[in-house]
Amino acid sequence: MTNTVLPADDNGVTEVARGRGIAAWRQIADEIEADIRSERLRAGMQLPTESQLATRFAVNRHTVRRSLAELASRGLVRATQGRGTFVEDRPMPYPIGTRTRFSENVSRAGREAGGKVLEAYETVADPGVAKALAIALGAPVMRLDTVRMADGSPISLGNAYFPMPRFAGLVAAYRDTGTVTQALAACGVSDYRRLETRISARLAGAEEAQKLDLAPGRLLLTVESINVDTDDAPIQFTRAAFAADRTELVVES
Amino acid sequence: MTNTVLPADDNGVTEVARGRGIAAWRQIADEIEADIRSERLRAGMQLPTESQLATRFAVNRHTVRRSLAELASRGLVRATQGRGTFVEDRPMPYPIGTRTRFSENVSRAGREAGGKVLEAYETVADPGVAKALAIALGAPVMRLDTVRMADGSPISLGNAYFPMPRFAGLVAAYRDTGTVTQALAACGVSDYRRLETRISARLAGAEEAQKLDLAPGRLLLTVESINVDTDDAPIQFTRAAFAADRTELVVES
Repeated sequence: MTNTVLPADDNGVTEVARGRGIAAWRQIADEIEADIRSERLRAGMQLPTESQLATRFAVNRHTVRRSLAELASRGLVRATQGRGTFVEDRPMPYPIGTRTRFSENVSRAGREAGGKVLEAYETVADPGVAKALAIALGAPVMRLDTVRMADGSPISLGNAYFPMPRFAGLVAAYRDTGTVTQALAACGVSDYRRLETRISARLAGAEEAQKLDLAPGRLLLTVESINVDTDDAPIQFTRAAFAADRTELVVES
Repeated sequence: MTNTVLPADDNGVTEVARGRGIAAWRQIADEIEADIRSERLRAGMQLPTESQLATRFAVNRHTVRRSLAELASRGLVRATQGRGTFVEDRPMPYPIGTRTRFSENVSRAGREAGGKVLEAYETVADPGVAKALAIALGAPVMRLDTVRMADGSPISLGNAYFPMPRFAGLVAAYRDTGTVTQALAACGVSDYRRLETRISARLAGAEEAQKLDLAPGRLLLTVESINVDTDDAPIQFTRAAFAADRTELVVES
């Protein structure tokens, strides 16, 4: 007998082993996980219904529900109200640390990095920007709004702020080179590091969902970050929103 | 004229300054942000409706909507379908790094840490646990499910796994001391560090929402972490879910 949620033996019933000291819901969750890891069940596929799973494993629906809740808490499936339970996509790991650079991160994940300028203009520092860049409220800053991609799929929206007049040439350099690291270099920043990253979550608004090619109401990981130059002077403050379906933030110590 | 979304002058109209080179939607967003930062508008308070704001600032509703979208992207307000726009709570900062300890983190935020064991039992390593702890699939592990609190308010749910037989005494020690650090010490771990943290987001299921005292469907920050001892041996793998309304993860480089 193979352990799989796909019909297993002649009558389509996969029996869980009783008396092994492992609860039936755990065994079922582990078997479904094994099917996902081995890609017998692939990202986006729908699991059988609760009642089909109950029949298949010869357990009651309460047990099946507990298995599915366990799989959801492992991040492997997602229950969609009224539509059933689906295998989650494996999100792209996105390292957060001292040396966080978008293009390098995406390349490390084996994908091709891309970016597009949505808007760029000179404006004044709002309270959050002023505090992050250690400049006066209302001081001039360059704002660069971008959508960034991996293999052509939108990954994140970013509103980045750079103090003026130091970074007056940044937007032109970004349009030329396509990476912030190279645009900063063109403004005389030989190296920089991430000082702090603040992570939260919220639902995508209609406009964000459209820009990220997401269904409205999908989840965003919001990432506020401050970069400093080699003299520890703040050079960039970014408010970014990552599509939580497509990325997983990884902090390595 | 004071700049506030509360009625400002005699006829209740706050005029935005034209011709300063700053778009009206930006000025309005900045003024509302200033009201929030100065606590004239407090967490949980409802903003005036779009049409009230349009009247008050003498702009059209499209401009007001752009201001509110900007404030939402700054994490300061939350639009609730059909119920209006509310000032967001300021979440508790929760540092993630090499020395991440729940009790210390909560104390650092000026709150009192608490924890409660939901379930604790010996089980076997599922694929994710086995990989994280570098043990065989099906090897014995102690599982400790907890809800953790700050000032009595639930902050996170955690399923923590510890390799057996090394941590046979862990649950009893945790019940005695109330902190994982002290429970690990009781099992001979003099010091430990966080090796890796993976962060994602999803919606709370019904049972999770109830345990965290959240409205169903609110957002969770999911945090998978691996701790290692001074010999770099994995000693703990945790799948935790933080209430995104109440906590903000902070990575310091």
